[in-house]
Amino acid sequence: MDINKIGEFGLISRLTADIKPVQPATLKGIGDDAAILRYGDTALAVTTDTLVEGVNFDLTYAPLQHLGYKAAIAGFSDLYAMNAAPRQLLVSIAVSAKFSVEALELLYRGLKLACKHHRVDLVGGDTAPSVTGLMITVTAIGEVDPAKATYRNKAQKGDLICVSGNLGAAYMGLQVLEREKKLFEEDPAIQPQLDNYGYVVRRQLKPEARRDIVDFFASSGLLPTAMIDISDGLSSELLHICTASNVGCEIHHHKIPIADETVAAAEELFLEPLIVALNGGDDYELLFTIPVADYDKVVGNEDVSIIGYVTGREEGCNLVTETGTRIEIKAQGW
Amino acid sequence: MDINKIGEFGLISRLTADIKPVQPATLKGIGDDAAILRYGDTALAVTTDTLVEGVNFDLTYAPLQHLGYKAAIAGFSDLYAMNAAPRQLLVSIAVSAKFSVEALELLYRGLKLACKHHRVDLVGGDTAPSVTGLMITVTAIGEVDPAKATYRNKAQKGDLICVSGNLGAAYMGLQVLEREKKLFEEDPAIQPQLDNYGYVVRRQLKPEARRDIVDFFASSGLLPTAMIDISDGLSSELLHICTASNVGCEIHHHKIPIADETVAAAEELFLEPLIVALNGGDDYELLFTIPVADYDKVVGNEDVSIIGYVTGREEGCNLVTETGTRIEIKAQGW
Repeated sequence: MDINKIGEFGLISRLTADIKPVQPATLKGIGDDAAILRYGDTALAVTTDTLVEGVNFDLTYAPLQHLGYKAAIAGFSDLYAMNAAPRQLLVSIAVSAKFSVEALELLYRGLKLACKHHRVDLVGGDTAPSVTGLMITVTAIGEVDPAKATYRNKAQKGDLICVSGNLGAAYMGLQVLEREKKLFEEDPAIQPQLDNYGYVVRRQLKPEARRDIVDFFASSGLLPTAMIDISDGLSSELLHICTASNVGCEIHHHKIPIADETVAAAEELFLEPLIVALNGGDDYELLFTIPVADYDKVVGNEDVSIIGYVTGREEGCNLVTETGTRIEIKAQGW
Repeated sequence: MDINKIGEFGLISRLTADIKPVQPATLKGIGDDAAILRYGDTALAVTTDTLVEGVNFDLTYAPLQHLGYKAAIAGFSDLYAMNAAPRQLLVSIAVSAKFSVEALELLYRGLKLACKHHRVDLVGGDTAPSVTGLMITVTAIGEVDPAKATYRNKAQKGDLICVSGNLGAAYMGLQVLEREKKLFEEDPAIQPQLDNYGYVVRRQLKPEARRDIVDFFASSGLLPTAMIDISDGLSSELLHICTASNVGCEIHHHKIPIADETVAAAEELFLEPLIVALNGGDDYELLFTIPVADYDKVVGNEDVSIIGYVTGREEGCNLVTETGTRIEIKAQGW
């Protein structure tokens, strides 16, 4: 059977369906942003992510330093989604001989900078020759109070659905970069025009993970009922939460946070900003649900948007447009 | 600068030289078989390993099920080398569309079998599309009493140098498989003749990690002063211990354990068994040093060979041949 036929999530579920943890330390295995392991009084969140050249990044426009930064951020973001604080990072790199030592030093500079910003120790790794290009796998380890780990499967009917920051910017950054690359390939004399796209390009090339939101939860005494990070688009992540929690949802078009720069770039490239926000990847924002009683705790935070609420499973997952039309939310595949 | 010019270890040391852990939980960062992290009363050993198609394995003769088994074993072996017990495994796979779902199921069957044999939970992973071939990165997590973690840098002058099992078999298995592949490519009608090479081929395709040796340490109250697993050949690993511990060593040719099957295969392929044992990779045996006072504890174990002893740094690292000649030990590169 063709892998593309069942998609990434179908594949993972098929490969791992019969796995049953036997170690008492394993609180949560496969099926969330990170595994949760209990050791002593604390719990660890552990996640692994792979970035592949030609699939997840294009070295034509992704500077190696930013790429290193982004690889680490992808791992940290998964830990924040479990309400965990990142502590250690391991990095495996497979690299072909076309890369120089200096190029890898740039990559590591980015990795180290991300570690510094998030107070993480780079504690190990592996470097292997590759027959083609560059592949980076990061494993991030974080610490979380076992009672405060936030899973995907605990959203409750009636909860508010919240999202940090704004969505779709990283995707528009990618579209702008791809357009400039194409123009450059057609005429190498053309210089890239990125002046008006600084924000969206930065969101694509050097994203940030929302430690500030997890810190905000701690300082405001807020514990989300469910949480996930948005790496594959809002639609896909919402469906993960709803499926795992056995609930439905209703979100409102005009509540979805989209930056002005994202709207401008989308319109210029003849894309619908809403679709970009729903399906664009690489946002690294946090999507979480909270009890209605905690409304007061989030309403004053300008960096959190309430976009809808959790419904019963039978109501399905829907987007309500400005004209009141209900549209079923579907995820995009690989 | 060309990566090959400074080699894998030179590269890692250059990329990571300025890294200083800031988290109190980080007991040991880069520079051993695994990082050692202290959480609560226990310590965790964490390691990551990448296997790349066309570099670390050849699907012409490596069955996917064995490959999955081997990938997990590579991680567990690093943990045993720290005297740790494996508990959890995460797996990242980058795979091109040429692989079917069924092929990946075979790969996972091997991963799961290794987990079962070593009582490990497969707790997470990532599956990414690759533009070429297959790449597997495993991250293995184990538990160790912080007072009993065995590092590379604590070998003491006068210690005995021991090795488990026998060396060079996996390398000879690879040579036999490569020879059969070449014959097959020249004439596809030829069937591979592997009957006489079952042992060495198995050591290459489906190696085992030495949990039994770590269990033996526990049951006999033995704590090695230093330990490393032999994945890159005895010479290379011995030099790692000697460099990290700032000592020298003397090992004896006739004490190096080499299986009869390895000797027979080497002679048939016009290779010197000693060189095969010193430089062949993929053994996954354990190399460790113990105080002379613990001689009695190992001498009765038929699966442990005492191959020499630790000397002062100034004496260098030497192999003594059967005729008494001293030869300086050098490592092979990437």
